[in-house]
Amino acid sequence: MTTPTNQPLAGLKVVDLTQIYQGPYAAFLMASAGADVVKVEPPGGERMRGAGGERTPMAFAMLNSNKRSLTLNLKTEQGQELLRKLVMQADVLLENYAPGTLDKLGLGWDTLHQLNPKLVYVSGTGYGLTGEDSDLLAMDHTIQAASGVMGCTGDPDQPPSRAGGAPCDIMGGIHMYAGAMSALVGRGINGKGTRVEVSMLESMYFTMCSEFTAYYAAGGELPARNSARSPSGVCPYGRYRCKDGWLAIISVAETHWHNIAKTIGRNDLLDNPDYANSARRLRREPEVNAAIEAWTSKQTKDEAYAALRMARVPVAPIRTIDEVQELPHLHERGMLHRMTHPDLGDIILPSSPIRFSDYDTASVRLFPQPGEHNVEVLNEWLTLSDTDVIDLQTQGVL
Amino acid sequence: MTTPTNQPLAGLKVVDLTQIYQGPYAAFLMASAGADVVKVEPPGGERMRGAGGERTPMAFAMLNSNKRSLTLNLKTEQGQELLRKLVMQADVLLENYAPGTLDKLGLGWDTLHQLNPKLVYVSGTGYGLTGEDSDLLAMDHTIQAASGVMGCTGDPDQPPSRAGGAPCDIMGGIHMYAGAMSALVGRGINGKGTRVEVSMLESMYFTMCSEFTAYYAAGGELPARNSARSPSGVCPYGRYRCKDGWLAIISVAETHWHNIAKTIGRNDLLDNPDYANSARRLRREPEVNAAIEAWTSKQTKDEAYAALRMARVPVAPIRTIDEVQELPHLHERGMLHRMTHPDLGDIILPSSPIRFSDYDTASVRLFPQPGEHNVEVLNEWLTLSDTDVIDLQTQGVL
Repeated sequence: MTTPTNQPLAGLKVVDLTQIYQGPYAAFLMASAGADVVKVEPPGGERMRGAGGERTPMAFAMLNSNKRSLTLNLKTEQGQELLRKLVMQADVLLENYAPGTLDKLGLGWDTLHQLNPKLVYVSGTGYGLTGEDSDLLAMDHTIQAASGVMGCTGDPDQPPSRAGGAPCDIMGGIHMYAGAMSALVGRGINGKGTRVEVSMLESMYFTMCSEFTAYYAAGGELPARNSARSPSGVCPYGRYRCKDGWLAIISVAETHWHNIAKTIGRNDLLDNPDYANSARRLRREPEVNAAIEAWTSKQTKDEAYAALRMARVPVAPIRTIDEVQELPHLHERGMLHRMTHPDLGDIILPSSPIRFSDYDTASVRLFPQPGEHNVEVLNEWLTLSDTDVIDLQTQGVL
Repeated sequence: MTTPTNQPLAGLKVVDLTQIYQGPYAAFLMASAGADVVKVEPPGGERMRGAGGERTPMAFAMLNSNKRSLTLNLKTEQGQELLRKLVMQADVLLENYAPGTLDKLGLGWDTLHQLNPKLVYVSGTGYGLTGEDSDLLAMDHTIQAASGVMGCTGDPDQPPSRAGGAPCDIMGGIHMYAGAMSALVGRGINGKGTRVEVSMLESMYFTMCSEFTAYYAAGGELPARNSARSPSGVCPYGRYRCKDGWLAIISVAETHWHNIAKTIGRNDLLDNPDYANSARRLRREPEVNAAIEAWTSKQTKDEAYAALRMARVPVAPIRTIDEVQELPHLHERGMLHRMTHPDLGDIILPSSPIRFSDYDTASVRLFPQPGEHNVEVLNEWLTLSDTDVIDLQTQGVL
């Protein structure tokens, strides 16, 4: 390990049994903050590795930087025994299997907690470990539906729509990480381990704050889905067509509206009482938006963005992901890194969105091959010799 | 304070200078895990309180449970001095002002770190504290645009769309909380405080994993926005109309497809080589979806959901937020609580999505009135007398 030691989690050992997006994001954040994260994979490697067809999917590369890989066949008794030995050395175990899966393998919380009372055991699920829906199969897509996010996304008279990305997976993952850290703080004070439980469904609840405000304010009437309108009723608000793309604008304060009107050359609207506050403008929303678009549609999104930004209006170009990964701001800040991978070629990899002023920032290390660190990890953690590891490999345990 | 002491963060003191959604979510999670969170508000109260018109917005109620409120006029020197004294007693300070705001008040990281070298000072911003875009005004709406989320949401030949909810605010907030906890873990090991920095923009990057996978797999071609289609190309995938609403279905494994076909009474498709795997079905996506909808459209969403759930298919009803807040599963699990507030009436309040097996769960306490705990907090934290507090109030400091 060449991780700098001046990192907040340096010295902590993590057994990472997770897969796909949710759990691996939690483990990635730990690795990025300096913990020794050992990704335990079945001998062929985590199934996400093969999900991109012939090449490793970019998502796998993004989510598995800075980890070490140990292959372990948990269907063998020896594999289970090795895992228990690793757990006895560990501070944190992360898992996002279906509820009950690890219990069946003799690797459940009750067993491992007895072996290591200081262990923080983190379970990430779709619906939680308890409750009538806990056995449901969960994917980001279905959690978007079950949690209400999909019902809030889309346009009037159109079907509910998927929000772009996999917000439920990543929201579940960051809550797993946050729960693990909270439990470590508690362990520092109380000296005991705990099981941490997070569900994707519950992790999404607070994202619908504005919709709940609108719903209660309307005395229990549901706000209509409207992707071009603010759930809190501010105006102007929306997306505006430019010559070569789109711009998002929101006017939260009256000064924003004043600055928009001046920038688009419509000072006349500032003297018009029909446009004197957000509520009145909302009644003339089509006119407000038409006035703005009459101006944006004659410019490129960069030009319109620059002018409105200069006028201190909350504005942003609606970016495509290729524009996001090339954004100078994100490279300048050290969030994104240009790397070359033997298989994937030139790629841009993100680092952790969490920064610490008084610790070193980990550089991004490319994701490991399955079992790449078998010798290293079993030697460091369990003092097994090279020959021991070769024997285990021959027996199909690794 | 009547918080149970068997909580992971019991004994920790938090000065919470945050407003709107992002920072308050971080502070809420701390309060829910047992920390003593003092919400410092300007004398009239945080501006979100008034954002709902005549009544407190539901979002404010959701995000400010379990905190105590202290009013403090930070525009006065005495107010600033009191804040510095509070910080000398605190473990964590949370803020989500525009970069530089607190520095101008003599309450920046450099000053407070000198006064309390063990302080964890957490700054949440839209774009970060550094970099060419750090001065941009940020709202969830514009960060959705800038981060790429909006560009991934919507349908082909339609404008990019806002994802429902305020995912960027909440994602920023949970990363602030996670960063604070990581810094406290580091403090436990290294004995030093640190500044933690989180931006909403960077917090959203990993949600677009699937889109990045598709983009790289296609050799740099952007995946089309399509809210009814999987970015990873699995089929069946989508939303299906029922008699009274919509259902979301995703088929990740071949067994899911088999079980769907059997449930909808289309065993014939299982013998048809054109439907033999996900890639082939994708070529006949309209036929696949029509076959499923021919079945769902004759049932209520509850009926269709029950049948597909029984068949172990990843399925969920597309819920509206009123259905979500009444979901028995979430009440049974203790995530949601029916409460009565003198002003808001009967409301349903969420608790923290993070649970700990070996600690007590905090009950949900209704959000405080502005300055409700002025006497209590200044007495406990700074040993000021009741008379001192009345004097400060008279002088306009509180």
